[in-house]
Amino acid sequence: MTTNQLVQEIKKKKSFLCIGLDVDLNKIPEHLLQEEDPIFAFNKAIIDATHHLCVAYKPNTAFYEAYGLKGWKSLERTIHYLNKNHPKIFTIADAKRGDIGNTSTMYAKAFLEDLAFDSVTVAPYMGKDSVEPFLTFKDKHTILLALTSNQGAFDFQTKTIDGKELYKQVLEISKTWENSKNLMYVVGATKAEFLADIRQIIPESFLLVPGVGAQGGNLQEVCKYGMNSQIGLLINSSRGIIYASKEKDFAEAAAIKAEELQKQMAVELDCHSKS
Amino acid sequence: MTTNQLVQEIKKKKSFLCIGLDVDLNKIPEHLLQEEDPIFAFNKAIIDATHHLCVAYKPNTAFYEAYGLKGWKSLERTIHYLNKNHPKIFTIADAKRGDIGNTSTMYAKAFLEDLAFDSVTVAPYMGKDSVEPFLTFKDKHTILLALTSNQGAFDFQTKTIDGKELYKQVLEISKTWENSKNLMYVVGATKAEFLADIRQIIPESFLLVPGVGAQGGNLQEVCKYGMNSQIGLLINSSRGIIYASKEKDFAEAAAIKAEELQKQMAVELDCHSKS
Repeated sequence: MTTNQLVQEIKKKKSFLCIGLDVDLNKIPEHLLQEEDPIFAFNKAIIDATHHLCVAYKPNTAFYEAYGLKGWKSLERTIHYLNKNHPKIFTIADAKRGDIGNTSTMYAKAFLEDLAFDSVTVAPYMGKDSVEPFLTFKDKHTILLALTSNQGAFDFQTKTIDGKELYKQVLEISKTWENSKNLMYVVGATKAEFLADIRQIIPESFLLVPGVGAQGGNLQEVCKYGMNSQIGLLINSSRGIIYASKEKDFAEAAAIKAEELQKQMAVELDCHSKS
Repeated sequence: MTTNQLVQEIKKKKSFLCIGLDVDLNKIPEHLLQEEDPIFAFNKAIIDATHHLCVAYKPNTAFYEAYGLKGWKSLERTIHYLNKNHPKIFTIADAKRGDIGNTSTMYAKAFLEDLAFDSVTVAPYMGKDSVEPFLTFKDKHTILLALTSNQGAFDFQTKTIDGKELYKQVLEISKTWENSKNLMYVVGATKAEFLADIRQIIPESFLLVPGVGAQGGNLQEVCKYGMNSQIGLLINSSRGIIYASKEKDFAEAAAIKAEELQKQMAVELDCHSKS
């Protein structure tokens, strides 16, 4: 999917919501545990109930790997279901991978080609040659960790390196990499006030923003500092939506939570188009 | 496995060799492609031929994920084979994971509990709460990326942050984390001269050293600067051993290459015990 296609979808749906499919068998409704593939059954119900309210889905691969072969199969079924039924929805493999060059190529092939995700999240610690293999795939996107939403972000990411915070160095240096136009960035909503500075460095790039809701981030703040002329934001919510209810009405409850966020986003988009 | 048990194995086998099981179907002997599970058939043959020469095996998960469900199955079969037949051999899931707390817990469970690896490699970018969930597993080890062997290591890892290189900050700060005694570190052999400084910060920790052989690192240099009173080194070689031949003699050829390294290691251990 091209960035332009994503922007069109955002405008059409009046939503820049990404729903995180972080499925924990301890948290899903009990009646689903009798299904042959409970994780996929859960995802399918959530997708069927929310696909008109969001523009992206983001399974975090950890939750699938934790169930071994079965989990991997559920991930495959989920992405195939999305690609077949909702090809205009942007898909993110939240894998946070990154390795030496030839190994990153294997990861890129796994997520962007074989599983056919539109994008994958990647960690920057190993530098240019660990990220560039992901950037070579046409109309695919690499979402680089810049400033994450957890407390540990302050251990290294916000430390000053050669006169500038590490996460800003990541933004600046990554802009010089080959095919850097295929880069997006993870920036946590819990640090919305950092977004103004970030937009100075990467005015054009899309940002994937976790941490709205469960982690305490504020949607209005994120939009105020982070939105650009092409919207440039994907706001992720996982637990706040998918675990809205543990009963048989879980999918409807998820849709209600998703719609609440979508409506707030529609207001933001409306204000933005008038400004 | 405890660190002490690993040290005993090193002394017994006169080897601190780790063999990287990075299996690429384009590089293995053609006759294996007719097997039902070519990757496992390859690994089994390599393990059967080399287990007396090394103390650790390290599958890089990228090479398995690249083959989807089949690859994940091959990884499961490989670790089960090792745990069943060679329980004294240290196993490393080279996964370079790291995510927010509850997600890291899922990864830790997948690799250390379900697959029952002795250790897993983890990236430090997201800080303390992304690594600590891995450290809670008893007699398991978390191998944190410090200074990697690729060119991209110079993009961020060696940059100066608050007066000290980032990789040194990672070493120092990680020492303060809960259960930090369960930490080991990745330090690339291509930067052996950095090892003296590294030993100042973490005199006791085990180092996993990739980059000897194919990437140009030098064994003697690594031992000179990196060995400590408990040996403290695992030297990894992947391609140089497992792809020594593409013919039917591939396992024997791998054993010959592994033995060459093991003999050099025996000399180093001998000198070390006398010094």
